[in-house]
Amino acid sequence: MSMRLGESIRTTLFGESHGPAVGALLEGIPVGTPIDEDYLKSELERRRPGSGISSLRKECDACEILSGVHQGKATGGPILLLIRNSDSRSSDYSFLPDQPRPGHADLPAMLNSDGFADPRGGGANSARLTVGLVASASLCQALLDEQNISIIAHVAAIGKIVSDKGPSILEDDEASQRVRCSDQKVAKEMLELVLETRKSGDSIGSRVDIEIKGLALGFGAGWYRGLEPLLAHALMAIPGARAVEFGVGTKTAEAYGSEYNSPWYLKGGEPTTDGDGALGGMATGAPLIIRLTLKPPSSIAKEQITLNLSTGEQSSLNVKGRHDPVLGPRAVPIAEATVKLVISDMLQRCKKDE
Amino acid sequence: MSMRLGESIRTTLFGESHGPAVGALLEGIPVGTPIDEDYLKSELERRRPGSGISSLRKECDACEILSGVHQGKATGGPILLLIRNSDSRSSDYSFLPDQPRPGHADLPAMLNSDGFADPRGGGANSARLTVGLVASASLCQALLDEQNISIIAHVAAIGKIVSDKGPSILEDDEASQRVRCSDQKVAKEMLELVLETRKSGDSIGSRVDIEIKGLALGFGAGWYRGLEPLLAHALMAIPGARAVEFGVGTKTAEAYGSEYNSPWYLKGGEPTTDGDGALGGMATGAPLIIRLTLKPPSSIAKEQITLNLSTGEQSSLNVKGRHDPVLGPRAVPIAEATVKLVISDMLQRCKKDE
Amino acid sequence: MSMRLGESIRTTLFGESHGPAVGALLEGIPVGTPIDEDYLKSELERRRPGSGISSLRKECDACEILSGVHQGKATGGPILLLIRNSDSRSSDYSFLPDQPRPGHADLPAMLNSDGFADPRGGGANSARLTVGLVASASLCQALLDEQNISIIAHVAAIGKIVSDKGPSILEDDEASQRVRCSDQKVAKEMLELVLETRKSGDSIGSRVDIEIKGLALGFGAGWYRGLEPLLAHALMAIPGARAVEFGVGTKTAEAYGSEYNSPWYLKGGEPTTDGDGALGGMATGAPLIIRLTLKPPSSIAKEQITLNLSTGEQSSLNVKGRHDPVLGPRAVPIAEATVKLVISDMLQRCKKDE
Amino acid sequence: MSMRLGESIRTTLFGESHGPAVGALLEGIPVGTPIDEDYLKSELERRRPGSGISSLRKECDACEILSGVHQGKATGGPILLLIRNSDSRSSDYSFLPDQPRPGHADLPAMLNSDGFADPRGGGANSARLTVGLVASASLCQALLDEQNISIIAHVAAIGKIVSDKGPSILEDDEASQRVRCSDQKVAKEMLELVLETRKSGDSIGSRVDIEIKGLALGFGAGWYRGLEPLLAHALMAIPGARAVEFGVGTKTAEAYGSEYNSPWYLKGGEPTTDGDGALGGMATGAPLIIRLTLKPPSSIAKEQITLNLSTGEQSSLNVKGRHDPVLGPRAVPIAEATVKLVISDMLQRCKKDE
Repeated sequence: MSMRLGESIRTTLFGESHGPAVGALLEGIPVGTPIDEDYLKSELERRRPGSGISSLRKECDACEILSGVHQGKATGGPILLLIRNSDSRSSDYSFLPDQPRPGHADLPAMLNSDGFADPRGGGANSARLTVGLVASASLCQALLDEQNISIIAHVAAIGKIVSDKGPSILEDDEASQRVRCSDQKVAKEMLELVLETRKSGDSIGSRVDIEIKGLALGFGAGWYRGLEPLLAHALMAIPGARAVEFGVGTKTAEAYGSEYNSPWYLKGGEPTTDGDGALGGMATGAPLIIRLTLKPPSSIAKEQITLNLSTGEQSSLNVKGRHDPVLGPRAVPIAEATVKLVISDMLQRCKKDE
Repeated sequence: MSMRLGESIRTTLFGESHGPAVGALLEGIPVGTPIDEDYLKSELERRRPGSGISSLRKECDACEILSGVHQGKATGGPILLLIRNSDSRSSDYSFLPDQPRPGHADLPAMLNSDGFADPRGGGANSARLTVGLVASASLCQALLDEQNISIIAHVAAIGKIVSDKGPSILEDDEASQRVRCSDQKVAKEMLELVLETRKSGDSIGSRVDIEIKGLALGFGAGWYRGLEPLLAHALMAIPGARAVEFGVGTKTAEAYGSEYNSPWYLKGGEPTTDGDGALGGMATGAPLIIRLTLKPPSSIAKEQITLNLSTGEQSSLNVKGRHDPVLGPRAVPIAEATVKLVISDMLQRCKKDE
Repeated sequence: MSMRLGESIRTTLFGESHGPAVGALLEGIPVGTPIDEDYLKSELERRRPGSGISSLRKECDACEILSGVHQGKATGGPILLLIRNSDSRSSDYSFLPDQPRPGHADLPAMLNSDGFADPRGGGANSARLTVGLVASASLCQALLDEQNISIIAHVAAIGKIVSDKGPSILEDDEASQRVRCSDQKVAKEMLELVLETRKSGDSIGSRVDIEIKGLALGFGAGWYRGLEPLLAHALMAIPGARAVEFGVGTKTAEAYGSEYNSPWYLKGGEPTTDGDGALGGMATGAPLIIRLTLKPPSSIAKEQITLNLSTGEQSSLNVKGRHDPVLGPRAVPIAEATVKLVISDMLQRCKKDE
Repeated sequence: MSMRLGESIRTTLFGESHGPAVGALLEGIPVGTPIDEDYLKSELERRRPGSGISSLRKECDACEILSGVHQGKATGGPILLLIRNSDSRSSDYSFLPDQPRPGHADLPAMLNSDGFADPRGGGANSARLTVGLVASASLCQALLDEQNISIIAHVAAIGKIVSDKGPSILEDDEASQRVRCSDQKVAKEMLELVLETRKSGDSIGSRVDIEIKGLALGFGAGWYRGLEPLLAHALMAIPGARAVEFGVGTKTAEAYGSEYNSPWYLKGGEPTTDGDGALGGMATGAPLIIRLTLKPPSSIAKEQITLNLSTGEQSSLNVKGRHDPVLGPRAVPIAEATVKLVISDMLQRCKKDE
């Protein structure tokens, strides 16, 4: 099982939810890149569970940087980012392996590994592993800043509550902060829905929208190293992802070419367009909008009926654990991190004309 | 620019739309795999333009197998699949590079390559390159058959005309055959819409649905080598792709966990589920449904207004060429080929417990 | 800078000699492989400085296994092997960066990294990094045992003292143990020479011979994934390596084909040969002999004259530090580890017919 | 079987000695690189059999460039280099598969491929495949010229006749030209020895020395992407290679550190050394000398006794074919090509600070 993302800048995740540690080995960060540990810390803090609508698992998520950094700068060698696990409660998973949870990868992972994988808390497939992703991406921020590339995400939909506003800095109010929707009014409705859903022991689906600005016209590559393929690849690995769309996405199926085609024009002397932010894998100069649909979290407080492997019959299952009623809010920093890693990787590759 | 797909079975596309040849170098096909040239030919025939609703470019698409095959079997060495171009009409592209087409990658590709790429007919970014993809995938069919894995696609939507039927063998009537929708009644409506659209000099969007059956429970891997990430990656490289969905896709955002979660049960003694065909990158035993949204073809017969780089002003452009009014029907064999290559690659990798 | 070895089984080294830690991220170990921590420990012990003829740096080299192992078996996920540095004396390197040591990579590494690499003790280029290599290889031993493949090395030459005996289990006497030569009589002479050399503040060159037994006829691959290319690649990365030879190596230049060609014959019903253990990248069934020449350690107690970058003139340099008078003895476990990783990687790859 | 060399500039060989074609798919050549077809042609001519001391097989070796080049410049896409086979005489190989040749990879290759590989003329393992290598390398020359890097090889030893002169432009006399030794006097002796050897139906070993000049101090990388590891890897894949040495190579084993260490000094204001051209994978500014030992060609005119697989007994074998009495002279352009590809690949990688 390869848990590596990227080719020029490579992030290899490691660890298990209830093992001793998680983290990432980050390779390819250019020599001399400043390493901002405070920013790393604040990004991990943002990813951390703890707000009212997320899991109660408490991890201090202290990240050690154990190699590849000297006097605050990247040396060019692999950077080991290590985060010890502390608050795992393995007893919550005593139903495994007999009763694989519905909607979770427990059973596939068990068969995939001939029973040798650590099943507790999802093992290596747990969203806990995204802490290494967020830590790695935070170290790429300097590379993006250098090119004036901005990447920002927010929660655009929870259930049937949808915002048409694009991602931007969150307002200061509680709802905006907790659901991470940049549309203050909609955020309130979302928070209400989430709290209600949680109260009923249920969970709900959501959508995260991501906007990339500042990619130079022509940035990227055709075919399998293009923007859309590489972004779709990385984003679909976020736990719970079920769809990824570019621009207006699925609505494109209904469009006519005469309306959809967006002419090129000059803006500040540079050619650009108002249409898709990427065409054929390469940037057009327009903002690149990506939509990521996330399913309702599979762990719910309600009793569920599922197969008991030891008896071969279905029986009821109560998943205790500490889980999120909705994935979107916590997925915001993870989606941002994922996109940052993909774009940074491509940036490095572009330097050598490949 | 890397035009390679896969790691264990690797397909590297090469060629330009109006250059001397296109094709693929296919690596990793296991020694002894039977090579069925007739099937290769029939698959290329299926990809070929020529039906009433597609481009009039006529390529005989004779494919030479120039290495890696001995006495009808794969030797284990790289297989060179070469298709000469014959019917390219470069004069149709005399508007380039001055007037990059709206919706096409002409301008990004030009800047991406500092002006050195062959711009004619989209150059290396042309859908013409998918001929190498289809040829390669046809040689993987034997590997899929061995595992009883079936992969089938059809056109599920054109404009607002949508079929709820899944992909299956096409009926024999003209409409089914031309639009490649397995829903005979809907196919008729689709054909009408397409012909009308074409008549008006316009183009229209579409959606292709793909169904993968026969993946063993647990097949795949977590994270970046999982089913969803690798399939999304490869499918988003199909020219015109704008969204990729798994299972019910974007509708998942509206679902509650209590409904969405699909319990495991025994079917013929094997655990399975009625829900998603893949969870966390691994197969669940249920059919895996993928939806691919394709934009309306960017080349339309209608006059378009776009930037003229030589003057810096917008002016009108009439794209002659020979183009398709809708991408879906021709994308069916291309989407199937793409999925076949991804699954074959994963199959090979699974053999070594990775 | 990529510090990764292997494709199917991948070892990525990390760390710096005087940084907080060294180690390796080991990927691709098949699920269910038993993890023998005692063997890991004993191999690290064997690599450790401490005998009379090696560096006095004392590292307890306690290795933590922080991921990819569950209940004593490999889960299939990346295995993080972490060893904290404890006994580094950075003050010994106060002459850097002004006075790069002759024969060391100090100056090239400094320019390679625009001055950002950690120069202390050779930084990421230090032989200290081989601790991760040895730890990783110890976990591959189970894979080799399964195939009855044995890999053993010994010191075949120090200065002009050469043994014609192949590698085998070391005798129990002090000389054999300290110089790691399996030829008891020669070992004594070697030890004397080394002690004398050390006394005079000098260092001396050496040669390590490695024997691989048990590779099945046909094991390997042609061209760039063949036995000789992959072994030469990995072995030439061992600090101080200057030549790698297969079979009789450089003496082949003087041979006539009529003598050198070694006919095939049946042995126990299986074809084999008495000649080279590998031909064209593939095993012949005969033992595969590899010779690795190592230069005299560059750090010597004698005063040396070298460039002072701050003045632009040559001046004298006394390298304190704690160094080995000869590389061979300590290179024995490192060469074995390197070969084990290469062969294990190839073994995994063979499983999928590539 | 992967026949790919390089990561940033990738050469994938394909073809079989007696199949329809050989060649290479060359990826990663920067956009805009001028493509000099005349130089390509002259390099292939230099590799071609035909001088008095080499095989009589006559291949016109016309190389078609079928993709990746537009208006004489690289587009950035994969470059397909195709050479049709024409003069293969498969009847010469009627002894296969029953009587595998001694010293050849016939038998290992047969077992490696479960009998599916094309055995004629060595199939995909034939030195015939190096034509794709030489063609690819010729297209990298422009990248090396840009950096003032020169790579030159010559025959330094045949049997016991050894030249101490380094590689340089060959003199015009017949002997120098035929044996490709830059030491005119020694070349004469070599030619005599070769002709004599050939007359007696035998073959003889040789050594090729390669000199790389112009690598900037610090060029390269540590560990597995270093100069020595990557060069050793690629050179050991040249058919017949048995040893690769850097600098004084195997003689290093006898050296004392106090003599061997070569101090840094300023030369034209730049630091350099008179010692090894590479240390720890990185260039020192001194010329990098590599020695490649090649075995005597395994195909000889003399009768040989070897195993007959159909009878299980040894019997006599007369290999007809058209073969070389010594590998060195023809290996000169192949070794140069190999080194050019490795250095060009590293050059591209350096651009992105990896």
